[in-house]
Amino acid sequence: MPELRRDPVVGYWTIVSTERSRRPVEYSKKEITEERSCPFCEGREAETTGEVYAVRKTGTAADSSGWLVRALASKMPILSPESPFDRYGEGIYDLMEGVGKHELIIESPRHDHSLDELSVADIEKVIQVYVQRLNELEKDPRFKYTLLFKNHGLISGSARDIIRHTRSQLIATPITPKRVKEELESTRSYFDRHDRCVFCDIIRQEAKDGSRIVAQNASFFAFCPFASRSPFEIWILPKKHSADFGKLPGQDFPAIASLLKECLTKIRALLNDPPYNMILHTAPYRHSDKWTYWRTVEEDYHWYLQISPRLTRDAGFEWGTGIYINPTPPEDAAQLLRETEAV
Amino acid sequence: MPELRRDPVVGYWTIVSTERSRRPVEYSKKEITEERSCPFCEGREAETTGEVYAVRKTGTAADSSGWLVRALASKMPILSPESPFDRYGEGIYDLMEGVGKHELIIESPRHDHSLDELSVADIEKVIQVYVQRLNELEKDPRFKYTLLFKNHGLISGSARDIIRHTRSQLIATPITPKRVKEELESTRSYFDRHDRCVFCDIIRQEAKDGSRIVAQNASFFAFCPFASRSPFEIWILPKKHSADFGKLPGQDFPAIASLLKECLTKIRALLNDPPYNMILHTAPYRHSDKWTYWRTVEEDYHWYLQISPRLTRDAGFEWGTGIYINPTPPEDAAQLLRETEAV
Repeated sequence: MPELRRDPVVGYWTIVSTERSRRPVEYSKKEITEERSCPFCEGREAETTGEVYAVRKTGTAADSSGWLVRALASKMPILSPESPFDRYGEGIYDLMEGVGKHELIIESPRHDHSLDELSVADIEKVIQVYVQRLNELEKDPRFKYTLLFKNHGLISGSARDIIRHTRSQLIATPITPKRVKEELESTRSYFDRHDRCVFCDIIRQEAKDGSRIVAQNASFFAFCPFASRSPFEIWILPKKHSADFGKLPGQDFPAIASLLKECLTKIRALLNDPPYNMILHTAPYRHSDKWTYWRTVEEDYHWYLQISPRLTRDAGFEWGTGIYINPTPPEDAAQLLRETEAV
Repeated sequence: MPELRRDPVVGYWTIVSTERSRRPVEYSKKEITEERSCPFCEGREAETTGEVYAVRKTGTAADSSGWLVRALASKMPILSPESPFDRYGEGIYDLMEGVGKHELIIESPRHDHSLDELSVADIEKVIQVYVQRLNELEKDPRFKYTLLFKNHGLISGSARDIIRHTRSQLIATPITPKRVKEELESTRSYFDRHDRCVFCDIIRQEAKDGSRIVAQNASFFAFCPFASRSPFEIWILPKKHSADFGKLPGQDFPAIASLLKECLTKIRALLNDPPYNMILHTAPYRHSDKWTYWRTVEEDYHWYLQISPRLTRDAGFEWGTGIYINPTPPEDAAQLLRETEAV
């Protein structure tokens, strides 16, 4: 089973696969570009793990054809719910068993569709499954956070093969990840100082300034952030303050689905279908039966979707300093994105 | 000139090139693999900026042939000493002119040599230039930190073309970078608790355990860190406590040069000359004429060289959580590296 190990210098956690250790020769292979046969297509439900949730045509049975969006446990989980929930020290080092959950959300029964190519009505169903799974995973008291993300056109660090079928991933972790904590601590300290949410302030300033707006509708706002780390990075936020994506009401699904489609379509058209990461930033789980440090997060945190095209590659300077170099100012990126028709 | 922009949510800085904005079409080009003609080779000194320092054969003149290691200002600097040292706010946003210095250290006059292929005596000269440049850049009171790094076999985020000629880079910044601050704060807090340096404790525990040692000599220690983020990551540290690489005495140059050569040679042999980043972690500048928060860093910080082969690619999970997935346990990596002969 995987192991979570804490760096004693700065305190970040690393997931170390202690079981299926990858040998040097497996890294020196050329990058895999050929796809293997796809188990995520409609009609091949028997080849995957059983579905944990699905949006289906009326009258169709679980794990058969007839679904529109389907959530599954990963066959190669990064963290597993079967691990014992053990934490211990080895001298100065901290370890934890790799307990967690890793799920896939297959966004379409068709192999050749990308998320942005689905209809708004179909993207609404994807949003519905996002919300359902985030809330469902919250029920396990061992999980402190679930990261929802999507790697489009990218092979992630741990993957050994490639399947292009459009999907998102959920990974529930037994810790509040360092990067998430940093955001929560920082937004809380902003709130302590100003009695306002920093994200609400950002929306107000961006709406007034206008130069970094990409698109918006009555409920949601999309813009290129002032200190974008990736060129053409976009954040989508609810205009009305809300810390928790899991509490998104059904009546907001059409508005977020249509703005997401618009942003992704613009990125595809302007940048020739680049690889991108989509990451949901949302409040951590706050289990009501125990005290958690994050109880008061409702006021000071604000969820958002981050879309980062991967057009540059970070190297020694970025790793050593945490400072990224963005060769396209977000004002230029936003203007180009505004001028790009989303068709 | 470039601009430093601070993210209002978490507080990281991004360098935005406001002058030579890169257009979408420049990103969609295929990765450049063809080399352009190399201005860093011996005999072509007139094509570069004037050298700021060099180790030369006796009797040869600056900016002519006869050098062994040569330091230059970058022609495409990420930060520039000509920028005015201005800091200001725009509503909730913080900005700073991109003041700093970007230098290259050409490690060999020959185009076809990598750092690990140089003789130990020649690597000593590279170390000597590292030390000289770090100390020289400290004299500018605007600089708070200088990152020394090396991208081997990698195109960095901002580069538009590729020259393979072996070199390291130095970037002096007007801020203490977030990642550096995190390390300093964390090691200080460890010292406050234990009255010991965390790195000295790491060396003691690793020496006793043995399973993650790669190589060592009388003065330096090389091992795969417990929570390695990259497979086959190596840290090289001085056994005797020292916060400041810039204070490395000349008598230690042969020992660090030979251990560095040994580690890099093992990586090349075991992993088929993979791309790697080398990053120097050292204490920030502490200008004696003004108060700085880092005055007391001597006791609690400990410099080290980090060598990270780039065999995996980070994607949504790593970006969203800060948790990396390492498919090769550092114990396996260290054993394989120990067994690899460095010839």
